Amino acid sequence: MSSPAPRPVPAFEPPYYTVVFTSVRLDETPGYGETAERMAALVREVPGFLGYEHASDPGGLGITVGYFRDEEAIAAWRRNLEHQTAQRRGRDRWYRHYSVHIARVERSHSFTREDGEEDTGTEG
Amino acid sequence: MSSPAPRPVPAFEPPYYTVVFTSVRLDETPGYGETAERMAALVREVPGFLGYEHASDPGGLGITVGYFRDEEAIAAWRRNLEHQTAQRRGRDRWYRHYSVHIARVERSHSFTREDGEEDTGTEG
Repeated sequence: MSSPAPRPVPAFEPPYYTVVFTSVRLDETPGYGETAERMAALVREVPGFLGYEHASDPGGLGITVGYFRDEEAIAAWRRNLEHQTAQRRGRDRWYRHYSVHIARVERSHSFTREDGEEDTGTEG
Repeated sequence: MSSPAPRPVPAFEPPYYTVVFTSVRLDETPGYGETAERMAALVREVPGFLGYEHASDPGGLGITVGYFRDEEAIAAWRRNLEHQTAQRRGRDRWYRHYSVHIARVERSHSFTREDGEEDTGTEG
């Protein structure tokens, strides 16, 4: 089983929104993997969802960053009942610590080596 | 050698700024580790720097999130000459892809289990 090569979510045209979710999980997190997969599938159905990326140090910090076109897209995701249930379960069973930072992107750019030194985006 | 238990950067009182840097590195990245350590030390000297966190999937995506009090703090970090040299080296030698998203945090909250279900922050 091989995954496709990872790619960062690219820079979009600002403004857009990012939700940074950083967490440290408990040692035992029954049901976490299935729920995380389900949420990853579900969020793609939200109108205005632009992408997300995740990285986690083994046994350490996990960082998930979601990108949304506007506040309404974030609000729609927050209203999702299945998502709300997962959030409750997270607080009850999975997380030792977490922080959420919801922010409006003002500048962004991307770099990719395949295209040489091309920079795209909005930062001067 | 044991590291302290990881903790997410906590929620601060908005507004503040976050810089999300996501990257995929080349297979060989000579000098990367030393420079990353040096940058982690150097950014702490920037007035208005609030904290940063990093996670990377082995062989995959790395995510670094920096938090700054205001735009001037980000500008000061961008002006740092040693940081500029490291950025050039990153484009030349270390990164296959990266994206940078600079965003103004409008809402945030933190949860930590040690204090029970205490939520701090600004989100309703």
